[in-house]
Amino acid sequence: MTATLPKGRLLGLGLGPGDPELMTLKALRLLRATRHIATFAKGGRKGHAERIIEPYMDPSQQLIRLEYPLTTEVHFGAREYKSALREFYDRATLQVASIMRGGADVALVCEGDPLFYGSFMHLFVRLRGDFACEIVPGVSGMSGSWSAAGLPMTWGDDVLTVLPGTLDAPALIARLHHCDAAVVMKIGRNFAKVRQAIADAGRMKGAIYVERGTMAGETIVPLAEFSGDAAPYFSLILIPGNGRRP
Amino acid sequence: MTATLPKGRLLGLGLGPGDPELMTLKALRLLRATRHIATFAKGGRKGHAERIIEPYMDPSQQLIRLEYPLTTEVHFGAREYKSALREFYDRATLQVASIMRGGADVALVCEGDPLFYGSFMHLFVRLRGDFACEIVPGVSGMSGSWSAAGLPMTWGDDVLTVLPGTLDAPALIARLHHCDAAVVMKIGRNFAKVRQAIADAGRMKGAIYVERGTMAGETIVPLAEFSGDAAPYFSLILIPGNGRRP
Repeated sequence: MTATLPKGRLLGLGLGPGDPELMTLKALRLLRATRHIATFAKGGRKGHAERIIEPYMDPSQQLIRLEYPLTTEVHFGAREYKSALREFYDRATLQVASIMRGGADVALVCEGDPLFYGSFMHLFVRLRGDFACEIVPGVSGMSGSWSAAGLPMTWGDDVLTVLPGTLDAPALIARLHHCDAAVVMKIGRNFAKVRQAIADAGRMKGAIYVERGTMAGETIVPLAEFSGDAAPYFSLILIPGNGRRP
Repeated sequence: MTATLPKGRLLGLGLGPGDPELMTLKALRLLRATRHIATFAKGGRKGHAERIIEPYMDPSQQLIRLEYPLTTEVHFGAREYKSALREFYDRATLQVASIMRGGADVALVCEGDPLFYGSFMHLFVRLRGDFACEIVPGVSGMSGSWSAAGLPMTWGDDVLTVLPGTLDAPALIARLHHCDAAVVMKIGRNFAKVRQAIADAGRMKGAIYVERGTMAGETIVPLAEFSGDAAPYFSLILIPGNGRRP
């Protein structure tokens, strides 16, 4: 056995839905106590997580931007997309691991909640065998959105179903038939398909479209009054439940 | 028209899953800025929300305990239960409204997220027509639990289904057949039924039982290794998804 330096930890910090004040006290404490802050980003653009942490950052902290490969030209189901992403996550893993091997913690900051459709998970599963990890949950984008809309989502025995808008139309319609409350996430370019699926499943009534919930430029409208072919990434559709209540 | 005093607002503050440090900055700011703090409670016992806010409370603040009627002897489906609860919420509404009519805000603090199976919703729907309301989302109990368990829940196109353990066994089994990831909430006395339904649906493998997630006395074990007839209120079962990942 050889003596080894203590390794750094991987911290997964959920930042919440967008409003920097919706970060938890724990995420803020760990963010401030960590020198190396990593974030996923797209090309040269300032990512959303970066905007959330901006008010709290100190010049002595180092921001590590893990930049996704360009992905908009290739369909997410394509083999090239999958292998480009795999290489990206492998590379990011090495980059983060080299800092932790040097003894420093790395805080990977994530919009929403780290273990709920989060890119954080791809690094976490690659690193958890070799490094101690701590995960701080965050307020999810859907909670932020239904609170902004003042929309009670689930009552009594209501079942909540969270659907990625990337599913095909028949799958969306079948799921929407079997749920009480529903949230459709990952809308983006899937907006027209999702909207039609909700109409076909007879769930348009009561459905609310929320764009940039809890952020500047927040938009909240009945889905029936909102049309178009696309929606930004930070948008989702809420269909509240109507269950048992006294 | 007669001049009226400005009325107070109803604030719904999500406190998160249990660890007081998992409160948001915004909830803490509004908690500290509000004199009248209301909380649902059971009989004379200190409620869970009370424990979460305890470290942050000031002696000048007034705690309004909204005490549920005794409910353990009566089945939740019974008519007496429903009418007792309705009277309770109506009375609590009057109590809170009288403070707000006097011009003061009332902050109703809630475990988890206010609009996700929260008792807050029963007062909110009764008061929102007459008073301004602001809702601060919180980290949900399920996010706290899957983070404590280090369990990535939803990948790629995974559908997440949140099931109340109060559903009957056939309904639980049918839902579990049609989901990728699942969370079963409200376990309590439904534990044995829920556990059997998960086994019957072939979803025991990978299922994790979490009791008091993020709190003192936290327990995290594979469901297959945990048996018994009942579980405490602050427990849930997590079945992670296994979707697309690069």
